[in-house]
Order: sequence, then structure tokens, then C-alpha cells
Amino acid sequence: MLARNEALANLKAGYLFPEIAKRRREFLAKHPEAKIISLGIGNTTEPITPHIDAGLVEGARRLATREGYSGYGDEQGMTALREKIAQVFYNSLEGCRLIAADEVFISDGAKCDIGRLQLLFGRSVPVSVQDPSYPVYVDGSVLIGAAGPWNGTGYQGIHYLPCTAENNYFPDLDRLPKNGLVYFCSPNNPTGAVASREQLTALVKAVQKSGSILIFDAAYAEYIRSPELPKSIFQIPGAETCAIEVNSFSKPIGFTGVRLGWTIVPKTLVYEGGESVNADWNRICTTVFNGASNIAQYGGLAALDPEGLQEMRQLTDYYLENARHIRSTLQKLRIACVGGDNAPYIWAHFPGRTSWDVFETILETCWVVTTPGSGFGPAGESFIRFSAFGHREDIVEACTRLERLAK
Amino acid sequence: MLARNEALANLKAGYLFPEIAKRRREFLAKHPEAKIISLGIGNTTEPITPHIDAGLVEGARRLATREGYSGYGDEQGMTALREKIAQVFYNSLEGCRLIAADEVFISDGAKCDIGRLQLLFGRSVPVSVQDPSYPVYVDGSVLIGAAGPWNGTGYQGIHYLPCTAENNYFPDLDRLPKNGLVYFCSPNNPTGAVASREQLTALVKAVQKSGSILIFDAAYAEYIRSPELPKSIFQIPGAETCAIEVNSFSKPIGFTGVRLGWTIVPKTLVYEGGESVNADWNRICTTVFNGASNIAQYGGLAALDPEGLQEMRQLTDYYLENARHIRSTLQKLRIACVGGDNAPYIWAHFPGRTSWDVFETILETCWVVTTPGSGFGPAGESFIRFSAFGHREDIVEACTRLERLAK
Repeated sequence: MLARNEALANLKAGYLFPEIAKRRREFLAKHPEAKIISLGIGNTTEPITPHIDAGLVEGARRLATREGYSGYGDEQGMTALREKIAQVFYNSLEGCRLIAADEVFISDGAKCDIGRLQLLFGRSVPVSVQDPSYPVYVDGSVLIGAAGPWNGTGYQGIHYLPCTAENNYFPDLDRLPKNGLVYFCSPNNPTGAVASREQLTALVKAVQKSGSILIFDAAYAEYIRSPELPKSIFQIPGAETCAIEVNSFSKPIGFTGVRLGWTIVPKTLVYEGGESVNADWNRICTTVFNGASNIAQYGGLAALDPEGLQEMRQLTDYYLENARHIRSTLQKLRIACVGGDNAPYIWAHFPGRTSWDVFETILETCWVVTTPGSGFGPAGESFIRFSAFGHREDIVEACTRLERLAK
Repeated sequence: MLARNEALANLKAGYLFPEIAKRRREFLAKHPEAKIISLGIGNTTEPITPHIDAGLVEGARRLATREGYSGYGDEQGMTALREKIAQVFYNSLEGCRLIAADEVFISDGAKCDIGRLQLLFGRSVPVSVQDPSYPVYVDGSVLIGAAGPWNGTGYQGIHYLPCTAENNYFPDLDRLPKNGLVYFCSPNNPTGAVASREQLTALVKAVQKSGSILIFDAAYAEYIRSPELPKSIFQIPGAETCAIEVNSFSKPIGFTGVRLGWTIVPKTLVYEGGESVNADWNRICTTVFNGASNIAQYGGLAALDPEGLQEMRQLTDYYLENARHIRSTLQKLRIACVGGDNAPYIWAHFPGRTSWDVFETILETCWVVTTPGSGFGPAGESFIRFSAFGHREDIVEACTRLERLAK
């Protein structure tokens, strides 16, 4: 009989969030009276706003008409949406390299696109990740065979770039492996830290110097409020020849369940032999993908109307206000933390304790689910990620309960 | 600078359908007056039916309400939909092995799931495909590294199983590679041939004997009208320990653009070492996928209501009636063909000519786009696939024009 793919055997335990869900279920089984509030998974909670939802409803309705019906579209997405994304999210940003519509590829979300990017680059490429980082960069690299088994502190072949309080959550980039992939997320999940223009400039230079390609995850860009912080890597000169940007409608407009994202692959990005990465990405998308849902794409179009953009701003403001509540509660408790000002996550430090231990304490003491920092990588140990996605009254109640930690 | 992934270099030319679209555009540029009818890509053309569309509209509308909003769901899909698929498509079929809800994984479509299955099994597994076959089995295997470069007649490492008029489009299974993957599609795309119960029993036995796993693509099962033909591989005893079934809402209810499918991975399917394939598939789906669109899933639920099932039957009847028109036209022209009775494709033979040559003739003479059989594999040479997806009046007009081929 066929043997198991050894890459799968290399992956340890379960994916982080199903593991958290399991522990929550186990706690509820023992304490059925507990009214748990989740500040764990970064799952949006507020309804889709009126103008954007009308786009979805209209998209669904038109499919029932002969004129409005569409079957397979272009795997790369609707031209109108590609153009609008280029214009709204890039070409109107200060100092951004002009992005053409055929450099924008619409997808069913950032996580799925990252999986396909790993297929694009294959198994022979060294991988660097921020530590801590969003699990798919590492787990997906293990699946494709670009990383080996867990060695007790990390996966073999992954170059971890620790982001700690000591370096202000921006890693030392001096020893990037040659000709590799560098995953970088800003605003960061899980730390909530946002890289400055100077830091991103240093990042692009280090990536160029090492002959690498940067996979820049900008899924939280719409949470940036400080005007001096770049929202796209393409605001940094040189990125157009060394970077790919992954982005998503999930967090700015609550499309986590609707599934819509995009990836920018500049036509100026080439491999060592001069072949076009954009053309290869197109081949990947047409071969093992069939496009995002047309209904979701109509919703995306509505989101980029002036009314939709206003709603996007209001929704992200709402979650940022939640973040401020959590952050000020933690500060009152004298728990060191970062993030929450230009990002919907707060990263809190509990020195001397393991993350899962703190997770259990908060669950048992406060009936609040969080995310253990160690789930994001070795340097996440002793940290807890608080997510600001929740109904306001739940956040306020959770903050009240968190004050029990003072005792 | 990072070098190109050699797996991509191994893939030849473009994906089939973008290539056809390109030739069509080029023809139109030269003949702007041509009113082209497409019998090429298997793209549905009829509006989504009322009850099912109401499910989509309602699904979109509820997302704007606090009670109805949902963000990330389970990556495996909504429990209600998993249960309903198990019940409607499997557990009510004669002789079908009972399928549990947690053996059903909801996805954004069969093509995408096949790509992820290739990630599941990795690069060290020998691959057998029907020849001709749907491109993603082969192209995806090349991308993951399970197949090597094109050697002039096929890809290195792919075991082609010719399906020809001589063997009645059912392959010789005597020499399957040991411990491999066997892709099999019935009703078949592109030939339209449907395997009988005896043939599928022989297939399962051959797969078992070779220690392989069968990836059974049943995306056209709802086009089966002959009651003696199995609609699922799990109607064949033994399949539960050697088969995975991939399926889709695209062709039965016109969801090609909406994106919804599913894959059945029985819990009784294990690797050589006894590890569960179902558990590994769950890991793949939670790691590089984030679930199908929730709106699409609400549409899927509506499709499995009694009204939805009736609409599904009417829609597939419509396309089957188209298929009968095309088939009888070809028969009148004395062009040998198969399919079109329990499948929406007709596979026509033009001995002594290349497929692209016939494609060009039909495009130039009839202004009809078809699909060249050689695009589906070496044994597809000299064949043309006619798709029955089209408005009735276009099919009738295309058939009239096809009669010009007699001259």
C-alpha cells in the first residue's frame, strides 16, 4: 500500500486554531455554566455593512438572470476588480510603484494564496520567517518539503528571525540565507507591530542583497492609522524587483467567511534566469485554482466604491476601538504589551510562564479564550495574543474579567 | 537571485483553456464579423435556478445581520451541508457504503481539491491517468514534482492508460505501477464515456492489487440517466479502503463561477503504516485552505432541498438534450463519436488529422469553438471534444453550421 507523504509526518500536532477550539470544548464540557468570550482566533464578528452586502446580494441575484449569469470567469479574477484594487489600494498611495491590473491576481484569501505561492517556489528554496509568525508560512513550507522535521525548537531548514521586545519586534536581517523566500507580515500577526518606512527599506535591501524574494503579507494594512506608516511594500523603492504582496478582504470588511483576497506579482520580478514570476504565478492560478467566487467578487467591487470604502473605515475603526480597550486593560494590569494601535492584535508578555499555561489561567480565571504565543513560533513562548475582533460589549466584559488576573 | 522552480519549467505551453481563448481572440481579430459559438470549455451557461439562487441571495443577506453573520467557519465546511451531501448523494444510493459527515470535506471546487490532493500525496508517488484526461491530474502532478519533463509524447513518470475506440474507452489496468495514485473520471471528461458497474469493480480490484489509491472524479455523476450505472465509486465494494471521491456543484447546478465542491475521504482509508488519510486530508484543508465561501455553501444547502434537487434534474436534462442535438448532428455527418447520453460531452474522431487542425477547420468553417482532444493527452490526438453547455438556440445554430463540414 502507498506510504504516507513524509512531509505530512514532519508536521507536528494540529493546526493551532483547531487545537484551541478543542481545549475550549473540553473546558466547556467540564464547566457548562461558563460564558466564554473569545479573544482568540482573529475571526471577524460584525455584520457585513449595508453597501457591501448589497453588492453580494445583487451579485447572487444576477446569477439567476440570463444577462447576469456567469460561469467560470478568468482564474485571475474580474478585470474590473483587478483594476479597482490597483487603483484604490496602490496607485493612490504616496510613492507607490504603479501597479497594473495584470499584476493583481484575485483569490479566495491570503492563506490559500500563500499555499499556492509555496507550490510556485517549490521545495528547494530556503525559507526565512519572522518568529513569531502566522502558522501557514512555516506549516505550508513543511508540506511542500521546503522544511524538514521539528527539531525540538523549530523546523529544520526554516531560518527563524526572532522579533522580541529587545529588538522592538523588528528582526535582525544580517544573515538571510542566499536565494531564498522571506515571509514578512506588517501590520504583524501576531504581534501587532507595524514596520516603519525605514524598517521596510532595510528589509527590501536585505532581501535584495541575499538574492531572495519577499512574500509581504499586508492583510492588516487597512488598520494602519499613522499616516507615516507604509500600507504596501510597493511604497518602498526596489520592492518591484524582489517582492510579492499578499492581501485580503477578510479583515477590512469582514469577508473571513465570504473568501476574497488578492496577490500582487509585479511583472518586473524575475528569477535568476530572467523568467517572469508573474507568468509562472498565472500558470499556477490557471492550473490548480479556478477563481474566487463571482458573488464574493461583486462584493469586493462594492467595497471599493466610495460608500464601501467609508464602511471599511468605520468597521476597522470599530475593531481598533476594541483594541484600545484591551490594551489599556493590560496596561492597567502592568502587563507589558505591544500592538493594538495600527493593528487588531495585542501581544502581551508573561515572563517566566509558558504560553499554554497562561492560556489555561486566563480561560479558567476569566472564561476568556486567547491565543498562546508559542503557537506562532519559538520566540512566541511566554506571550499571549489578544484579538480585538469581537462585539464591543463582549470586549468590555472580557476586559472587566481580565482584571481578575491582578489578584 | 532565486532560481525558477524546475517543476514549472517542466510544464509545457499554457493551460489548455487559456490557449483556446487566445486562438479564439486571434480569430476574432482577423474576422470581427464572426459570430462565434463556443462548444469548447465546459462552462455552464444557464442561469442559476430560482430555489437555489434564493439560497444564495438569502445567504448573502443574512451576513448583514448580527444573528446571521458568520466569519471563518470550519475549513471542512458547514456540518449541515456535510450531512446533507452524505445523505442525498451517497446514503440514498443503492449499495453505497454509508458515508459519515466527517468523511465529507466541502471545498471551492474539484480542480482546487485535486491540487490539494497532490500536495497531500507529494512527489514520490507514481501517477496513472486515463489518456485522454482532464489536464489538472497531469499538470498538477508535474507541479508537485510527481512527474518530470515532457518527453515528446507524454510527461516522464506519468503512466498513461489509453482509452480508445478499440477498448471502448475503458483502459487496460493490468500493469498499474505499485503503490501509486490512479486518477479516474466517470462520467468521463473529455470522452463522455461512463464506466459500468463491472468496469468500476475491475478498477477497484486493480487499484487494490497494485496497493494504490484511486482518485475518483465524479463531477458529472448527476448527468447519469441509465439506472444501472453507478454514480459513486462507493457503490463498489472495496472502494472504502482504496478510494477518494472528488465531486462538484459546478456542473449539476451551474456553480462554475460560484465555486463549491466536495471530496469524500473514507476513514477506512489508511496508508501502508496504518495512518489515517482522512486525518491528513483534514490537516491539509486546515493548513492551506480556509473553507468554501459561506454564501456558496448556503446555495449548496438549497440545492439539496427537494425543490433544489428538482431544479438540478431539470438543468442537467437541458444540457443532456443539447448533447443529443450535437450527437445526432455528428452521426448524420458520419463522424464517429461517443458520450452525450449520460454525460455533457461528445468525443468525436477525425482519423488522420491532428486535433488542432480540426479545431481550426471547425473554427474557420463554422465559427464554432471546440476543444482539441490532444489537449487532454497523447491518446486524444485526432479527437475533438464537443461540450453541450450552451443556450439551446446556440446549440441548434452550431449544429446547423457543423453540417458545413460535410462539404
